[in-house]
Amino acid sequence: MRKSFHMTPNEFRAAGHTAIEWVARYLEDVENYPVLSQVQPGGIRARLPAHPPDSGESFEAIMNDLDAIIMPGITHWQSPNFFAYFNGNASAPSILGELISAGLGTQGMLWATSPAATELETLVLDWLVELLGLPDAFLSTGRGGGVIQDTASSSTLVATLAARERATGFTTNKTGDLGHLTAYTSTQAHSSVEKAVRIAGIGSANLGLVDVDANYAMQPEHLERLMLEDVAAGKTPAVVIATVGTTSSTAIDPVQRIGEIARRHGAWFHVDAALAGSATVLPDMRWLHEGLELADSYVVNPHKWLFTNLDFSALYVTDRSALINTLSVLPEYLRNEATESGEVIDYRDWQIGLGRRFRALKLWFVVRHYGVEGLRHHVAGHLRMAKELADRVRQHPDFDLAAPVPVNLVCFRHRGGEAVNQHIMDTVNASGEAFFTHTKLDGKLTLRMAIGQTYTEDRHVRRAWDLIVEAAASAE
Amino acid sequence: MRKSFHMTPNEFRAAGHTAIEWVARYLEDVENYPVLSQVQPGGIRARLPAHPPDSGESFEAIMNDLDAIIMPGITHWQSPNFFAYFNGNASAPSILGELISAGLGTQGMLWATSPAATELETLVLDWLVELLGLPDAFLSTGRGGGVIQDTASSSTLVATLAARERATGFTTNKTGDLGHLTAYTSTQAHSSVEKAVRIAGIGSANLGLVDVDANYAMQPEHLERLMLEDVAAGKTPAVVIATVGTTSSTAIDPVQRIGEIARRHGAWFHVDAALAGSATVLPDMRWLHEGLELADSYVVNPHKWLFTNLDFSALYVTDRSALINTLSVLPEYLRNEATESGEVIDYRDWQIGLGRRFRALKLWFVVRHYGVEGLRHHVAGHLRMAKELADRVRQHPDFDLAAPVPVNLVCFRHRGGEAVNQHIMDTVNASGEAFFTHTKLDGKLTLRMAIGQTYTEDRHVRRAWDLIVEAAASAE
Repeated sequence: MRKSFHMTPNEFRAAGHTAIEWVARYLEDVENYPVLSQVQPGGIRARLPAHPPDSGESFEAIMNDLDAIIMPGITHWQSPNFFAYFNGNASAPSILGELISAGLGTQGMLWATSPAATELETLVLDWLVELLGLPDAFLSTGRGGGVIQDTASSSTLVATLAARERATGFTTNKTGDLGHLTAYTSTQAHSSVEKAVRIAGIGSANLGLVDVDANYAMQPEHLERLMLEDVAAGKTPAVVIATVGTTSSTAIDPVQRIGEIARRHGAWFHVDAALAGSATVLPDMRWLHEGLELADSYVVNPHKWLFTNLDFSALYVTDRSALINTLSVLPEYLRNEATESGEVIDYRDWQIGLGRRFRALKLWFVVRHYGVEGLRHHVAGHLRMAKELADRVRQHPDFDLAAPVPVNLVCFRHRGGEAVNQHIMDTVNASGEAFFTHTKLDGKLTLRMAIGQTYTEDRHVRRAWDLIVEAAASAE
Repeated sequence: MRKSFHMTPNEFRAAGHTAIEWVARYLEDVENYPVLSQVQPGGIRARLPAHPPDSGESFEAIMNDLDAIIMPGITHWQSPNFFAYFNGNASAPSILGELISAGLGTQGMLWATSPAATELETLVLDWLVELLGLPDAFLSTGRGGGVIQDTASSSTLVATLAARERATGFTTNKTGDLGHLTAYTSTQAHSSVEKAVRIAGIGSANLGLVDVDANYAMQPEHLERLMLEDVAAGKTPAVVIATVGTTSSTAIDPVQRIGEIARRHGAWFHVDAALAGSATVLPDMRWLHEGLELADSYVVNPHKWLFTNLDFSALYVTDRSALINTLSVLPEYLRNEATESGEVIDYRDWQIGLGRRFRALKLWFVVRHYGVEGLRHHVAGHLRMAKELADRVRQHPDFDLAAPVPVNLVCFRHRGGEAVNQHIMDTVNASGEAFFTHTKLDGKLTLRMAIGQTYTEDRHVRRAWDLIVEAAASAE
């Protein structure tokens, strides 16, 4: 009988070099793949064995199936021709940070369970405050601090829970009694806000949806009116969530004015800059964050636009004790000297889960590889390409811009109506040469192109636009 | 001015081979590192630059700092001398699956955003049903199905939310009105249960903590009494959570009898087998799951004991529509033909977050590399080593077993009292030669050793036991 089924270190070396070569070739070739997978539902599963193998198989056999069966079912988020949703731009140093993290296999739930994982996380999140010009109140060196979450949805949920607890004097966790709490965000906010309000037990009926202006940014006057009405009805405004860069059109809510209103009513003020926050690596983009000093919490996702592969959402708070008081449960089996001393951070108390991967390595690798200079260079390139695409749309007689272009998303429409726009999107996406998605603005189908993929260059944007213009011509 | 700061594919090749060699050497050497990091709070951060670098640095410089600064702050979860908490056992194929996943950088929030990510996830979770002998009702081919979550905390939270919604006719999400819902678990359940009940807005005061028997397993009679009292007081039992393998002592709650009581009261029945579930890869361990046919949901973490690196928690439900009705919010920008067709799974509706890494690759790589045979071989080895350690404890005149050893955790105490036991733990952990942790059982300090690390062999367990006996001798 075999003594061990593990790969030996040398077998790992051989397989690892194969895997690295595979990723290198993928990154070389990725722009040649059809961006949007063209398979039919069930098409991938049908080609895979219904049952797990009794005996182990060779690494070569696994990699062969990866190529033959899995790859046709991949939508290539790392393609320079990917313009859909919001980008999720990985990079080579980030991939290697993930590899090292997986190799170490540490679990940083407590400081003691890997002090370096906690201390590097605190450091890189302080670095990010400096990189993005965020308020000093978010630094760990004061009463605030940052924490890595998996996604902005989790970040916003955690902020909403802290807001709920602060609004009820930290009693809801125990009693389950929320009183009559209310939350507020704009009609353009991300779906994760409604999801957070539901999960927290506040209820979507108690989420005030604030009107937006012609640029799809929140109208502070309407926010204030909703809050006053709710207060008059005996309700307690618990949280206001502003968006810097909405998902549909990257509209920029007026953070300063919203923050003043939230403060006046004693509500927690959370700012969601999941995508757009990364733009402030450029000092001339820091107007995006005007008024952020009024925020209680803030989220930006380096896994969207800062070359750090999923998952890496950075949540900041100005009062970490509110977060910890909301989420901490300390059973005996997690007690340890460092925790009792109060001198360390245990990030398990800053999130929903207990286990934690060592994700700080990824951003550390990225920032050290690129330096401030490199990050600025590439984000500036995306912004420039978006502006140039917007110019092309503006100059074309058959197309209109559908919203301002403050960062890297261009929203536009063909003047021929919904059927033509749908035809354009379907035609280009089916070609495999580019992939973009849609939204609705003012009830009208709107095409949107986000330019933020790591390897996107001018030629890719120009080619995508040519495909769009060609598809429009074929609609007639 | 530089045109690009990205690594070229060839630079990635070179750095990647360095990183693979680094991981291979780490896996060769890991048993020689001090298991528990010996640094002081602040010790790692003090050695790192306070500010991000203006210009990029070489990969060599980053790796040098990894060795010199980060490594002394790592607690080595992958060491064969790691016996603390519950193990988190990674493996070479899993590390490579993570690397491929990071290289692809796909985001599987929707089927359409990478059909293979969704279909492979569905497949490997169906495979896992077969591997562990779980009830067919958890298969995706019926009305149920599995989904990968980051941790068991998230799995239990998601199950609790579905339970909350089912108990209120799926209205709480909207109204925020929970009525008077109650939840139940044993006094020995994981802290994530209380955390879930808090987050869901039920409130920890409405969590009935059920007494345990002499083996620390839930007493069904006490559960039934608590539920009857609550119903008599006008409350609605929403969810009962049983544990197969509690964190303190791997006690096995009587699933069958608890399930019958939960069903009788119309409560959702969730079973947490985060650690112990993996043992049922061995047919003769399937008694652990007796009565699981009564469960509405179930969680097992392959990232604990099935050679799959963090994060990979598998949550199963028998009625996926309850989960989807609880968590789905569909904004316009996520609408697509495949979703509208109803023929595909969009896993974003099965979890809190929206973004999703391609984690199915990891378990696929693991199961294909090891085969059923290899997984059984290594899990059986851990079980055998735990039984043999338990025998050594039992045979030693100065030590007692503190709880039964149904799976891979041995709980024990020196007869000399709390100070001696504390001394043993502190001495061994400070030596760096082994690392284990404690709990309290019946209010008494209890030492615990979990045997489930990938590379743990008999000699490591014997050495750890010798260190414990030596430390006990030095206490006198």
